Amino acid sequence: MPAPLLAARAHRIQPFHVMALLARARELEAAGRGIVHMEIGEPDFPTAEPVVAAGQRALADGHTGYLPAAGLPALREAIARHYADRYGLDVDPQRILVTPGASGALVVALALAADPGRNVLLPDPGYPCNRNFVELVDALPRAVAVGPDDDYQLTPALAETAMDETTAALVVGSPGNPTGTLATAESLQGLAALAAHHRATLIVDEIYHGLQYGREPAQALAHAPEAIVVNSFSKYFGMTGWRLGWMVVPEAWATPAEKLLQNLFISASAPAQYAALACFGEAAQEIFEARREAFRQRRDFLLPALRALGFRIPGEPAGAFYLYADVSGLTDDSFAFAGDLLERSGVAATPGLDFERTAPQRHLRFAYTTSLPQLEQGVERLAAHLASG
Amino acid sequence: MPAPLLAARAHRIQPFHVMALLARARELEAAGRGIVHMEIGEPDFPTAEPVVAAGQRALADGHTGYLPAAGLPALREAIARHYADRYGLDVDPQRILVTPGASGALVVALALAADPGRNVLLPDPGYPCNRNFVELVDALPRAVAVGPDDDYQLTPALAETAMDETTAALVVGSPGNPTGTLATAESLQGLAALAAHHRATLIVDEIYHGLQYGREPAQALAHAPEAIVVNSFSKYFGMTGWRLGWMVVPEAWATPAEKLLQNLFISASAPAQYAALACFGEAAQEIFEARREAFRQRRDFLLPALRALGFRIPGEPAGAFYLYADVSGLTDDSFAFAGDLLERSGVAATPGLDFERTAPQRHLRFAYTTSLPQLEQGVERLAAHLASG
Ligand SMILES: Cc1ncc(COP(=O)(O)O)c(C=O)c1O
Ligand SMILES: Cc1ncc(COP(=O)(O)O)c(C=O)c1O
Repeated sequence: MPAPLLAARAHRIQPFHVMALLARARELEAAGRGIVHMEIGEPDFPTAEPVVAAGQRALADGHTGYLPAAGLPALREAIARHYADRYGLDVDPQRILVTPGASGALVVALALAADPGRNVLLPDPGYPCNRNFVELVDALPRAVAVGPDDDYQLTPALAETAMDETTAALVVGSPGNPTGTLATAESLQGLAALAAHHRATLIVDEIYHGLQYGREPAQALAHAPEAIVVNSFSKYFGMTGWRLGWMVVPEAWATPAEKLLQNLFISASAPAQYAALACFGEAAQEIFEARREAFRQRRDFLLPALRALGFRIPGEPAGAFYLYADVSGLTDDSFAFAGDLLERSGVAATPGLDFERTAPQRHLRFAYTTSLPQLEQGVERLAAHLASG
Repeated sequence: MPAPLLAARAHRIQPFHVMALLARARELEAAGRGIVHMEIGEPDFPTAEPVVAAGQRALADGHTGYLPAAGLPALREAIARHYADRYGLDVDPQRILVTPGASGALVVALALAADPGRNVLLPDPGYPCNRNFVELVDALPRAVAVGPDDDYQLTPALAETAMDETTAALVVGSPGNPTGTLATAESLQGLAALAAHHRATLIVDEIYHGLQYGREPAQALAHAPEAIVVNSFSKYFGMTGWRLGWMVVPEAWATPAEKLLQNLFISASAPAQYAALACFGEAAQEIFEARREAFRQRRDFLLPALRALGFRIPGEPAGAFYLYADVSGLTDDSFAFAGDLLERSGVAATPGLDFERTAPQRHLRFAYTTSLPQLEQGVERLAAHLASG
């Protein structure tokens, strides 16, 4: 019997190439090698104790059932207060929808915005799943090369050149993955104006908001009020494995977004939503800020150390926990380089292949999601690795 | 400024009409009325104590990070053992992928199976989200009317008439929602053969497996080995709000399915996966079986009681926790009837509108997800309601 036909999108969707590297790293570790992990896009801290305790209480209290599709009302209100407290913004809780991670929010955002065959602008390099969310709904990912000159952000000038009458959406991230750079307020305003002109949707992924170490990132809701803004409890709030995020949509889209959430997810995790309420308490906020300080110290160590070894990192990556290095002075194939670095020297980093189409072979992403002593050891190993050529 | 264009699918996707009814029921309750809830598709039992305890331990142990996209290996193995123990089937854990609920599994299954513009056969009445999962990927839901003659199940004969060369998939549920009926082994075999002939994918939703009160439902993996089988920890295992399910895919589709899971969800909830391990322990299994017995008693009470009142429920609904009644002897508009029943008599049930296109006005779904005393009160109220005309 011939097998069933796999939909074309399943062929177009790419796996994460770093997974093979991660598997190999685990193999080496199982064989007794110590590996310095700089490939992982997840904070190395467990969920903060007050949040864990709130989760345990939620379970004890029997909060194990489906919740409203748009989220626990108390959590939507807490997120609204967060916008008020942190950004001085008045956001109607009705516009805030709780989702299974930023991942769930991005799926819904693109399902709302992109008809099949329309194109979606994505900065290149960028977060690899975005292209695949676009593929899911059979729209066309359109990579727009960004680089050091634009601080690796999609600017209005770049977007204008790439947009046409079939552009359905633009997806930007600030602070960005894999580069850690920020979009400026002017850029967000310009992108919003362009999107409005084309009746396209601007989607701003703010999952790394809170993790910034110098300038504050501009808040899209202030500069692009019609944008869909995506966020998550995964990174700053340290809740990756709980699968919880949110999206803020323009008022007119709250009902369609809720309809999609209802159908696709029924609701986001109940214990996670109750636990997340504790993220806005003082005890948790102190922990988050202490962790942010730890990330800052790591960045402040790693950035000059890598530069001194010949990794070119332009500008000042001001947020997230990534440094995106141009390795063209050291190798002409970052993928082979990453494999060799792991095998010979026990350092794992993610090659550009997962993030970009423009010049993947020139780039390597280092995540500072491991302790300072580990990072120090990583840098030592890198130095020895390069010296041994 | 004109607003961004909403994708066409967002107009096609229907909300759950029962939500308005549920909101009204809550309003009445807030005003002091006692409502008998027979509209809710969720067990009224909280998650079983051993599962809650395992969840709390997982949190204490710091299992709060992302997990592998395909699921915790120990959980995939536990599910494989479940197929061995319960059905005598040998299923390779590599074919088992853990998902955020059956919902996540159905999204992935349809994304794998259905190219835009191809059609997907859905029994009508059926689970309302299926149509919308099909809309998400811009395939065409094709409702196939099923009724008492087919035990409300899609038969090979019905499927054959409805299929054509653009059929991408067939989605059936057994035990089914909203009817509680089972697909026979012969039917599953016949559907599998038809699917193979058309190179289409058979998707079998077994979320209500375990909740059966007479005959055992046929296991699709035994009779349709190339099918995608979807299941969940929500219903029999009582973990709705944790958002955890799984899918079993043919070997050749394990890699594409994993790729989709990786991108769409990163991973399913970590605390939920650790907690779910306890579902296969003896303590939890005893609780599940006791709950099943409670559901059986409720069904055994409710089925004859409703019939005595003039609700026509054909055949023997042998599973899930639903009775799907033909109300055409009592009203010619089940939607208005449900509204009136709630307002005047304080009984909530779900009109056919959410489940079918064929004859929604003729049908009403009663869920026995509330206690026997509540059901007794519901039946009394129904009797009085009908008597008062
Ligand atoms: C830029 C960006 N957006 C979204 C996500 C999805 O995260 P989550 O679904 O855990 O919120 C990630 C995860 O790494 C990310 O880096
Ligand atoms: C037939 C059927 N399939 C799938 C689902 C989705 O359930 P979950 O995502 O909680 O596993 C439901 C929920 O009611 C259902 O009734």
